[in-house]
Amino acid sequence: MAHSRKIRLGATITGVGTSKHGWKHPDLNGDESVSFAHFKKIAQKAEAGKFDFVFIVDSPYITEGSAPHYLNRLEPLTVLSALGAVTSQIGLVGTLTASFTEPFTVARQFASLDHISHGRAGWNVVTTGLEGAAQNYSKTEHFDHEVRYKRAEEHLEVVRGLWDSWEDDAFVRNKETGEFFDKSKLHTLNHNGEFFSVKGPLNIARSKQGQPVIFQAGGSSTGRDLAAKSADAIFTSHENIEEAKAFYADIKQRAAAFGRASEEILVFPGIGPVIGRTQEEAESKFQEIVGRVNLEDALIQLGRPFTYHDFTQYPLDEPFPELGDLGSNSYRSATDRIKRIAKEEKLTLRQTALRFATPRSSFVGTPEKVADTVQRWFEEGAADGFIIGSALPSSLQDFVELVVPILQERGLFRDDYDGDTLRNHLGLSFPVNRNSIQKVTV
Amino acid sequence: MAHSRKIRLGATITGVGTSKHGWKHPDLNGDESVSFAHFKKIAQKAEAGKFDFVFIVDSPYITEGSAPHYLNRLEPLTVLSALGAVTSQIGLVGTLTASFTEPFTVARQFASLDHISHGRAGWNVVTTGLEGAAQNYSKTEHFDHEVRYKRAEEHLEVVRGLWDSWEDDAFVRNKETGEFFDKSKLHTLNHNGEFFSVKGPLNIARSKQGQPVIFQAGGSSTGRDLAAKSADAIFTSHENIEEAKAFYADIKQRAAAFGRASEEILVFPGIGPVIGRTQEEAESKFQEIVGRVNLEDALIQLGRPFTYHDFTQYPLDEPFPELGDLGSNSYRSATDRIKRIAKEEKLTLRQTALRFATPRSSFVGTPEKVADTVQRWFEEGAADGFIIGSALPSSLQDFVELVVPILQERGLFRDDYDGDTLRNHLGLSFPVNRNSIQKVTV
Repeated sequence: MAHSRKIRLGATITGVGTSKHGWKHPDLNGDESVSFAHFKKIAQKAEAGKFDFVFIVDSPYITEGSAPHYLNRLEPLTVLSALGAVTSQIGLVGTLTASFTEPFTVARQFASLDHISHGRAGWNVVTTGLEGAAQNYSKTEHFDHEVRYKRAEEHLEVVRGLWDSWEDDAFVRNKETGEFFDKSKLHTLNHNGEFFSVKGPLNIARSKQGQPVIFQAGGSSTGRDLAAKSADAIFTSHENIEEAKAFYADIKQRAAAFGRASEEILVFPGIGPVIGRTQEEAESKFQEIVGRVNLEDALIQLGRPFTYHDFTQYPLDEPFPELGDLGSNSYRSATDRIKRIAKEEKLTLRQTALRFATPRSSFVGTPEKVADTVQRWFEEGAADGFIIGSALPSSLQDFVELVVPILQERGLFRDDYDGDTLRNHLGLSFPVNRNSIQKVTV
Repeated sequence: MAHSRKIRLGATITGVGTSKHGWKHPDLNGDESVSFAHFKKIAQKAEAGKFDFVFIVDSPYITEGSAPHYLNRLEPLTVLSALGAVTSQIGLVGTLTASFTEPFTVARQFASLDHISHGRAGWNVVTTGLEGAAQNYSKTEHFDHEVRYKRAEEHLEVVRGLWDSWEDDAFVRNKETGEFFDKSKLHTLNHNGEFFSVKGPLNIARSKQGQPVIFQAGGSSTGRDLAAKSADAIFTSHENIEEAKAFYADIKQRAAAFGRASEEILVFPGIGPVIGRTQEEAESKFQEIVGRVNLEDALIQLGRPFTYHDFTQYPLDEPFPELGDLGSNSYRSATDRIKRIAKEEKLTLRQTALRFATPRSSFVGTPEKVADTVQRWFEEGAADGFIIGSALPSSLQDFVELVVPILQERGLFRDDYDGDTLRNHLGLSFPVNRNSIQKVTV
């Protein structure tokens, strides 16, 4: 049976994984986060599985307590560019903060990646949750949560304006007449806003897909609004289908309020599938993961979204501590969620730490069961697609080899690429250059 | 005959070339500056020729009058990373301004390139000569010439400090003990300087070559001092051997004043060889280049180092105009030189424009003659190596196929790589981590 709406799939590449303990897995050397060979292997595996994109997460601040992957890892734009040279179809999406970067530089680097990859680039716009990051950028403190989203919105507006500096047919390269470009098709941005003033034009043309695809990953209300207003896709995370459906409906509603159609903003829950030939095998793999976690690491990991708050100061077996506003200027949606669930489920600190160090995934089981869950989330309005994380080193390979064929058989996922830009894979329309639009007379 | 000191060779990749007219050459499509296939072809050609490195020039500001290559080109860090994936030996050197970048970001991106390429990265530190660039970075005006070099020096100091965040053997990855890294080998920079305050540590380890190689390309006195004090190599440009020898001696003297040995700072004149099977063929190729230049383009090109000063306002056939201080906060060494030569040679404006649009190269001739000139510059103290530019689309190929074998035969250039890091190619020593040094007790 053929479905007209298809599931979209992405894969994160996170080296040794984003938990404190993942690097200990027997299948890992421990240096995967700085190994280009590893990134290449994962990207090529995802491309063989006809995935829409690979996705590189990022954050620019570490402490001694950071998980191994954060301590020592490749930087997104450089590694995605290198991947562009060794892949030919798969999208290349990278996280970059709008809080500590110049729009001109961001526009240039993503546009360059977009040319190198012939239209496969995507930018995941974040504002950086870790307050300490400000100190790496000659700032005494991080911007307030609301301010950093306002800045991010203007930043993105500038970047998109710069990407439209040249109309698509601006470069005529006529050796007869000596005309290299059509001067009427070069546009100087002259942006003067609240946070940025950027003259332009950008020194690189638009690519085959017009502009890189915009992802957003913040779950707070301001983050959701930024996504609903300006992004093409949002990367989110949920424990169960109810949570996911509520989030999905909220994003589509917010988008509608900004005058956007449902298919203009795609919702991608990140999932960590644990797949076994039998349900027992899958459960046993999941228990192996749980077994590698110790309480000390779990407490540190719990502290991270609160900008590495020290949880060892509280009694372990009493109710989760009252934290007041703590974390609200950090990864706010994550910290709110931890506080809410600890309260709702009446958890002690110990229980909370262990629960969030090994969240129970809805995607543990046989290939058929995981495919069923994927289909259910997709069809019941919880997801437009999924971003596959590495709960285990073999997660992606298992998903590609065991789950993808089932989804293909059910007509839910492409058998092969039918284009070669990320925008095309995702079914997003080509963004007409704003300066060309203005010229159209009715 | 074997020489112990060898010539070092680099190649710029400049797409359609940095002149106003180069794109009109029949062998070019005109889109080479944004074609990764072109960059890959040149890099692989240079690697086949056993070159030490490829070199990407850069500047972050354009106007309508900019030469075609500047208008629309790939960004250095992204394209070098992509080249890292399709080459295995050649060094990858990119220009990046210290004036409009964050040291933390620069340190991360070059370190990541260094890991992706297994120790082949180099950073050409510039301060950006074009004053208008400031307007692309939310600044009303560019830093004063002296200030921007002081900032660059501190910027570089911070970057190098960040690169030493982790001692070389910091990551123990011991699954038995659960120790991922040795905490005594992680160092937080805590830099608080005049221009930057950066806490650190950097979230990426040192590479196989310790730190990326530092190039510098400013010819002013402050630029030379920065190179002599802090760089491993300097990229320069001279019309004749006398000029080149004077510059070379000056750099080595300045380095000595900073307590550095002659071989710690390598001098690389950029040259644009025009090679023919006979001297006549070479001359005719050179005249072809001259023939493609028109006066209008030459005047615009002359204005560029003066931040696009409009020279059409002066009479063409009167002596080169008196410009006072104009250009001194832009590409100062270039503007000083133009003023000086126009005066010394008593040139009109027309003559000046045409002279600088098609500078007479000392490297026009048969392969033997070009090899002789290369050898003479190298042996008489004018150069430690050369960076080959693209006077013609075939310049690099001609040099690799016709001149390199002669230099190899004379024992002046390597027959094959004897290592695989850029530092090794250049004969530079491995930089011991500053934090490891401090631990050594005498």
